[in-house]
Amino acid sequence: MEKIVSLCKRRGFIFQSSEIYGGINGFWDYGPLGAELKRNVKELWWNTMTRQRDDVAGLEATIIMHPQIWKASGHVDTFSDPMVDCKTCKGRFRADQTNEIPCPQKPSKMVSECHGEKTAPRAFNLMFKTYVGPVADEENIAYLRPETAQAIFAQFKNVLETSRQKVPFGIAQVGKAFRNEVTPRNYTFRSREFEQMELEFFIKPDEVVEAIKGRVTPGAELDTRHSTLDTSSWGWEAWHKYWVEERIAFYEGIGLSRTTLEEYWQKPEELAHYARACVDILFKFPFGTQELEGIAARSDFDLSQHARFSGKPMGVFDEELRAAWGKLPKEKQDELWRRYYENRKKYLVKMGVEPEQAAKDATNDANGLAKGQYIPHVIEPSAGVDRLILALICNAYSEDQMPDEKGKLETRVVLKFHPRVAPIKVAVLPLLKNKPELVKKAAEIRDLLRPHMNVFYDDAGAIGRRYRRQDEAGTPFCVTIDFETLEGVKEGPLAGRKDTVTVRYRDDGKQDRVAIGELLNWLLPKIC
Amino acid sequence: MEKIVSLCKRRGFIFQSSEIYGGINGFWDYGPLGAELKRNVKELWWNTMTRQRDDVAGLEATIIMHPQIWKASGHVDTFSDPMVDCKTCKGRFRADQTNEIPCPQKPSKMVSECHGEKTAPRAFNLMFKTYVGPVADEENIAYLRPETAQAIFAQFKNVLETSRQKVPFGIAQVGKAFRNEVTPRNYTFRSREFEQMELEFFIKPDEVVEAIKGRVTPGAELDTRHSTLDTSSWGWEAWHKYWVEERIAFYEGIGLSRTTLEEYWQKPEELAHYARACVDILFKFPFGTQELEGIAARSDFDLSQHARFSGKPMGVFDEELRAAWGKLPKEKQDELWRRYYENRKKYLVKMGVEPEQAAKDATNDANGLAKGQYIPHVIEPSAGVDRLILALICNAYSEDQMPDEKGKLETRVVLKFHPRVAPIKVAVLPLLKNKPELVKKAAEIRDLLRPHMNVFYDDAGAIGRRYRRQDEAGTPFCVTIDFETLEGVKEGPLAGRKDTVTVRYRDDGKQDRVAIGELLNWLLPKIC
Repeated sequence: MEKIVSLCKRRGFIFQSSEIYGGINGFWDYGPLGAELKRNVKELWWNTMTRQRDDVAGLEATIIMHPQIWKASGHVDTFSDPMVDCKTCKGRFRADQTNEIPCPQKPSKMVSECHGEKTAPRAFNLMFKTYVGPVADEENIAYLRPETAQAIFAQFKNVLETSRQKVPFGIAQVGKAFRNEVTPRNYTFRSREFEQMELEFFIKPDEVVEAIKGRVTPGAELDTRHSTLDTSSWGWEAWHKYWVEERIAFYEGIGLSRTTLEEYWQKPEELAHYARACVDILFKFPFGTQELEGIAARSDFDLSQHARFSGKPMGVFDEELRAAWGKLPKEKQDELWRRYYENRKKYLVKMGVEPEQAAKDATNDANGLAKGQYIPHVIEPSAGVDRLILALICNAYSEDQMPDEKGKLETRVVLKFHPRVAPIKVAVLPLLKNKPELVKKAAEIRDLLRPHMNVFYDDAGAIGRRYRRQDEAGTPFCVTIDFETLEGVKEGPLAGRKDTVTVRYRDDGKQDRVAIGELLNWLLPKIC
Repeated sequence: MEKIVSLCKRRGFIFQSSEIYGGINGFWDYGPLGAELKRNVKELWWNTMTRQRDDVAGLEATIIMHPQIWKASGHVDTFSDPMVDCKTCKGRFRADQTNEIPCPQKPSKMVSECHGEKTAPRAFNLMFKTYVGPVADEENIAYLRPETAQAIFAQFKNVLETSRQKVPFGIAQVGKAFRNEVTPRNYTFRSREFEQMELEFFIKPDEVVEAIKGRVTPGAELDTRHSTLDTSSWGWEAWHKYWVEERIAFYEGIGLSRTTLEEYWQKPEELAHYARACVDILFKFPFGTQELEGIAARSDFDLSQHARFSGKPMGVFDEELRAAWGKLPKEKQDELWRRYYENRKKYLVKMGVEPEQAAKDATNDANGLAKGQYIPHVIEPSAGVDRLILALICNAYSEDQMPDEKGKLETRVVLKFHPRVAPIKVAVLPLLKNKPELVKKAAEIRDLLRPHMNVFYDDAGAIGRRYRRQDEAGTPFCVTIDFETLEGVKEGPLAGRKDTVTVRYRDDGKQDRVAIGELLNWLLPKIC
């Protein structure tokens, strides 16, 4: 891992935030190569998840939102770590880590063993708090969002009403989130400021699917990778399975093969109380196998919470349901009504609503079915950008032996990024800086390619060293303009031909000769 | 303006943040169309400013940074509005607005006229404050960045050392910033959370240019739009002029013509103390002519401040300068030394360094010239994303008369976005939803175009209404699959030909017939 950290600094992927001031714990900046890598990943996610689909709309919400949102989501009350204070050294420590943290005054002992008197554990909320407006009082408290998901729920109705979408459909968002982690660690993996790519995909409750289609496709039956899918009888299990497969395919498409990933299905006792299932997609980091993304089936918990806390209805009207319901036999209506009712009541009671009131509200909710009304359920694929960037770098990092200019083997560091995410797609290198014909031709090629891909132009230093620098940057192709470009190729299939270039492949160092006129079309399919 | 605000809500460009909770003053979300529009603008800026150039590198830094950064930048001490508190009503008001704000207890009077006893004006800092780590004390104060620029200065050396750039070169960043405005106003124009696109372009001080090239090109001589520029003798005036022209060209390229813009050269008495010049690019909003971007020549102020506050040198070494200096006649050396010395000393004294110490430090700095060392100056084109989005929407908004399906003229609302920024590039519309051949063909066309542009597929409702919906979304082209697509064109140049579609132009409603096989290549140049 140290080699990776050192490469990231040395080549401008990742810097410590505010490094010249000694840094700030848990905050990391992306340098020129890192910023490009991150942009590529976010752009691919957005493209895959929204632009290439009919059934997902985008959103870009603010980081600071109304504080009630975090009441409704449960973050104000429960998003916390238990902490103890030491009355002697005035330190504050995570209650579950006192065995691992040395006492600041007597580092030979752990906090749990030292003599300082400790308070009982108290909840420490992980949201960053601030005040909006000129007066710093209770009324003006606001939080930096600890996740991007809640804005999607809060704007669900606005998006539904303006986007011409109907359930099932999703809302996607990419953006920063903040958690005041007590112990940020593992480089950029657990940071206090990070970026998320979240989709909330809203679906019909199983009872609604069954009312309309007569059945719900069992998840196990499903081959979700089939290209022409009829999703009309999918319930939450099928949609959940579908999104797990979609997301793994995404990772494969940017160079993380299945062997580098693990799929972890959370056990019933591990699930959040509102979740019906959750799959973690893990990557084998050098510091352990850790989560890249969680794909949770969150029932109708989130929309229900915001409906209760805002007083604004979050239900949708579904003409198909209304039409189908009337045609159902009475027993079927009763059965579906009962199941929907039980789910609603269970949720309400769990959230502290008095049983009598809960029964009344659940009855209301279930009565909505006949009118075509229900609260959508949601499947949430939620990915961390920064940990994905770190996974891509760890996965790409490789050392091998390659001959130097004199043929002597030397150790080479190379980042074998998938060309789709590589920060630089092609380097354009005139063999010599002091030959105007070479430089002129190289500038022409740079200008030819640049509108279509990220090009790095480099004319300084020995060509072998310039190749090595591009290997470390993860650039899949180097194009060299040499004397054969000007004078014609000496041998091989293009012998005698002018205006060709050498293309060098990053991964094995092999070289091909390509005509300049064909270069763009030769490169384009290899980087998309 | 109300019509624009209403359209933005109705069509999903802009929503009030946390609307279901009554909103939060000064915060705005971008809905599906707004998010796409904003992505396009940011992507075009990034592409123009970094990827299409050799001399700019990107950066993506954190929003929360070390608090010393805001000491060095001056924000902790001076980024504030003067506020008065009313001891009677406990309200807090901007001291310069007490004549405009009604008294909360007696709204018939203004705050300045009411009887409540007021405190003397006190500075209210506009930075949002929070605490990093588990203990909320002085030591752990942090701020949400009020601008993206400072991270660029703080990481200047890291980028310089890892990116193979040499002065002159720039560092570009796009990202959120936060200002706790006392009175957010003009819709999204002045928000508390907003996004910036900033370039810091580092240049040689004029004395260094003169030492190397023997002269500095006067700004007035310059035709900066010429394609093959020799910039080696450009000083700050030329670079400043160049960036003003570049930035105006950018706005023209996304549909804001020069007639919608104003160029305002700040008067000497308006300039910040460190600035040598600042040009504001203004847009004629419905609520007044207001700033989109400022392009400031900031001297070496920022890097100097961070050098002093961090104790880390911010100077660069320039081999050309070192070589040139030795060849200069003694009088020239002395003259340049003296000018550089005076500038450095003036800066140091202004920042409160004792004159004696300032003279000593400035001597040191000026002595660096002979060794090839100097602190770069900077030109800063700094644009606000949200106000640009608002300008694009205001500029695009238009009402005209167009015949409805029965030929009767009706008022049409249309957003005439430049295709480059339009959220949707093309809508694909099967004439009828219940004709499987039309729908199948439409889906094929959607899938053909989608990898290359943002496509909206819509099969519901009368075709005229679907056109109107796309007009309001600003979609430049509608492609309709009709019976002539299946059966062959009835008349005109393509008569008898199958597999053609109708392409309708947003701005004038005119229609062309295009063969499906040629559609992609017909569209591509029109949207780039």
